Amino acid sequence: MPHAKLTKVPAVTGVLETSIYVKDLKRASEFYQRLFGFPVIYSDQKLHAFHIAQQQVLLVFKCSASAGASAVSGGIIPGHDGAGSLHLAFAVKTESLPQWRHHLEEQGIEIESEVDWPRGGHSLYFRDPDQHLLELVTPGCWSVY
Amino acid sequence: MPHAKLTKVPAVTGVLETSIYVKDLKRASEFYQRLFGFPVIYSDQKLHAFHIAQQQVLLVFKCSASAGASAVSGGIIPGHDGAGSLHLAFAVKTESLPQWRHHLEEQGIEIESEVDWPRGGHSLYFRDPDQHLLELVTPGCWSVY
Repeated sequence: MPHAKLTKVPAVTGVLETSIYVKDLKRASEFYQRLFGFPVIYSDQKLHAFHIAQQQVLLVFKCSASAGASAVSGGIIPGHDGAGSLHLAFAVKTESLPQWRHHLEEQGIEIESEVDWPRGGHSLYFRDPDQHLLELVTPGCWSVY
Repeated sequence: MPHAKLTKVPAVTGVLETSIYVKDLKRASEFYQRLFGFPVIYSDQKLHAFHIAQQQVLLVFKCSASAGASAVSGGIIPGHDGAGSLHLAFAVKTESLPQWRHHLEEQGIEIESEVDWPRGGHSLYFRDPDQHLLELVTPGCWSVY
């Protein structure tokens, strides 16, 4: 059931980092750069970080490489790791859908499915090289988008 | 190496949906509502969707429940699923850090680690009930935040 936002909770201003975990970091990084043109804002042997838009960053981690805690100059980043075909949706403008279809085709990426949402939005689903389920979705999907 | 954004690629306006996968959907949903006060904008037996801020939604899926394709009125949502301790960072304001520390303590949530970033940001790390690694991070982490 929907709950009203609690007033005593400090605010979160957004999701800054979304993470996926991939078998081949170079292959995944090239895919996200080539398909989306996301700028790389950080890269090392186990992580490539991409700027998506505004204050949003996509972290692409090599599988298993961050399972243990990592020491950085300012402290310790605790361990994390993931497996499976994770799901991630990118917002796009309605008028850009034809360009996206053309771009996906040019890049040899098969659209696996499409969904029309009751509020008027439309989604294109396809896979990244690690079988993560990516979605491009236009406004009119959720009440908040 | 950083790449400039390619001009011929249609634009992504943001990450709309970030997904995690949990063993006990009720337990996870109560955690995200209680700790963060995120409003539930959709719920069924396999998914609770939370509004985080602006056009950003957190999807909490019951493990395995979305591994197969799902038919909805407007099409087919392809299968996806995840395992492990995924990582997710929420942006918070610098001045809210003391409130967050107090709130985490009140909620009985242990801060597992803290990191000071070279650009001046600060992160608090802790776990959700499924051991996903959550981070609250203030501005001054990435070049874009």
